[in-house]
Amino acid sequence: MSPTTAEPTAVLSANFTPKSLAELDTPALMVDLSAMERNIARMAAFFKDKPAKARPHSKTHKTPQIALRQIAAGAIGVTCAKLDEAEVMLRAGVPSVLIANQVVGPFKTARAARLARLGELILSVDSAENVRELDAAAAREGQPLNVIIEVDVGMDRSGTRTPQETLELAKLIRGLPNLRFRGLMGYEGHAVMIPERDKRAEAARLANSKLVSHAEYLRANRVEVEIVSAGGSGTWEMAGSHPGITEVQMGSWVTMDAHYKKIIPEFENALTVLCTVISRPSPERAILDCGMKAITKDFELPVVKDGGAEVISLSEEHCKLKLTSRELAIGDRVELIPSHGCTTFNLHNELFVVKDNEVVDVWPVAARGGFH
Amino acid sequence: MSPTTAEPTAVLSANFTPKSLAELDTPALMVDLSAMERNIARMAAFFKDKPAKARPHSKTHKTPQIALRQIAAGAIGVTCAKLDEAEVMLRAGVPSVLIANQVVGPFKTARAARLARLGELILSVDSAENVRELDAAAAREGQPLNVIIEVDVGMDRSGTRTPQETLELAKLIRGLPNLRFRGLMGYEGHAVMIPERDKRAEAARLANSKLVSHAEYLRANRVEVEIVSAGGSGTWEMAGSHPGITEVQMGSWVTMDAHYKKIIPEFENALTVLCTVISRPSPERAILDCGMKAITKDFELPVVKDGGAEVISLSEEHCKLKLTSRELAIGDRVELIPSHGCTTFNLHNELFVVKDNEVVDVWPVAARGGFH
Repeated sequence: MSPTTAEPTAVLSANFTPKSLAELDTPALMVDLSAMERNIARMAAFFKDKPAKARPHSKTHKTPQIALRQIAAGAIGVTCAKLDEAEVMLRAGVPSVLIANQVVGPFKTARAARLARLGELILSVDSAENVRELDAAAAREGQPLNVIIEVDVGMDRSGTRTPQETLELAKLIRGLPNLRFRGLMGYEGHAVMIPERDKRAEAARLANSKLVSHAEYLRANRVEVEIVSAGGSGTWEMAGSHPGITEVQMGSWVTMDAHYKKIIPEFENALTVLCTVISRPSPERAILDCGMKAITKDFELPVVKDGGAEVISLSEEHCKLKLTSRELAIGDRVELIPSHGCTTFNLHNELFVVKDNEVVDVWPVAARGGFH
Repeated sequence: MSPTTAEPTAVLSANFTPKSLAELDTPALMVDLSAMERNIARMAAFFKDKPAKARPHSKTHKTPQIALRQIAAGAIGVTCAKLDEAEVMLRAGVPSVLIANQVVGPFKTARAARLARLGELILSVDSAENVRELDAAAAREGQPLNVIIEVDVGMDRSGTRTPQETLELAKLIRGLPNLRFRGLMGYEGHAVMIPERDKRAEAARLANSKLVSHAEYLRANRVEVEIVSAGGSGTWEMAGSHPGITEVQMGSWVTMDAHYKKIIPEFENALTVLCTVISRPSPERAILDCGMKAITKDFELPVVKDGGAEVISLSEEHCKLKLTSRELAIGDRVELIPSHGCTTFNLHNELFVVKDNEVVDVWPVAARGGFH
């Protein structure tokens, strides 16, 4: 990734007339453009001299304009969770998409083969059944499919578990006419949220070593392994520095959230939800027009951006604040920092792009609302 | 509500060709039409002889076809949480909409006045500031607005707190030329989830008594109070039987969820999410293609409909099952019952309507994606 290739203003909409924050109805999902650009530059600087490349996870933002900025800064493509996201990213011009989940069933496998015509598409597999149905779908559509094997590196979720199992699946893939075996992936989801950096680094090292050992076992058995993909935002530097890892899949870092800020403080919180005070039922209480349908609490409660108040509960359409040192009147605006950006982006249709307290663009969260 | 007025098949789409469940891609939000119709009939039978009327909360389903069935069974209108929902419901032909939240700020108040031309719209207020801006917006749009006062009946959220405060606000409203004072509402949100029926009934009784006492205080001061609206799914019978309550706002009952099923077992779980097994990493483990972006866990984890397996975790795009007595292969389908229907509907664009294991219609979750 080279920060010099980025053209930050190139993807701002030509016809958008800047407006003030006061002109936004609430709740509104906003990104601080300068803070996000600094996050992208920080990531790019790290990968500049590394053998590993960045393949940021776009499940976080689901927004092509963010993905294209990541590509412009040197990312080799994006990671996606599902075909709806992959389609949006491929159609937006992202050159390579890795789907980090299994693509299973007749609808999805046929669609994957059709989407593979739009650009490089790489699917992760962990079972013989899925491999065979992908080969059959690729044959029917006349479009070969790239696959990598997902290895369970300790999360106890999807993935092969032993080097022998990985090797057998790789041999099966290589024996099928319509699939191309590209490598391995693992996700150390059990490591990314460990608060202590030392413990997190050790858990990531163990996970990445397991993944690389599977790759080495395949190579020792004369199976070529090109891609070894791993990492999340909490372990981005660890995966990016681990010998043998070729790609890193981190997602949240680009716009960040209050939860990850405690784990990787090197990135800035660029994402907020602008809210309005709708009720002041008592001297220490303010109610905002923003609940779980606009900002999530699956990690923890959101955080009040400029302090002076604390979120004490979030119901479907209300956020209850305890005021500590801030005075708020009915109609005043408050910015909340989501605790979990990935699940909050998913609730919004649009991302308002803010620079120097002015709304300079609106980007569609284009892959929102896609389930498949 | 009279069950005899319902025309259950009238709102099925004329041109939809029934298909099998196997023809649905997953995850897919589904409603069992017969179970939902029995829930509606049960509700209608209760309200048939009561002075109180049903005004079901449509924030749960956000689906006009469900609202219209509730109206056909005797509901006087719907409750909504915000203007985007109100607009969808009014445009679909719902005759009366009560917004149970405060509508604050220049965009929302102007829009409310414009929407009020489409049908009866009733807004809840709890502050002088909001009342004055609503009157000004109504004046500018040349459209009077109906308002009710929200009373805090014990939830410590929005709402006036003393009868004197309620009276002063009512007098302010009555003195403004463009507002029409219609009554009071309260939401006993602190009571609706109490598991023990006796304790729940007592908490509801206290809350409803407080609300009615405010209404009586206003009447004693020569302020007419037409509407006294209260209740949630956990307290629907209690609110519907409480002397002086004129409307009940319960939402979840119509399609239900796993959490409310423990509290109001008289309604059936009609709502499920159809999922596909994408990985079988170990003998007791199956992974589904359905995570927090298709089914929520803000109450608790979802429940496997036909048993034999237990949800042990839900990440963004994966559901991890522990298999107890069920055999599942890659590609098999599993139905999950959401723990919280209101937040799950909000994630989906479409509701697949199932009868006798056949998909008989697709209803748009039309108010999904509306934030304002």
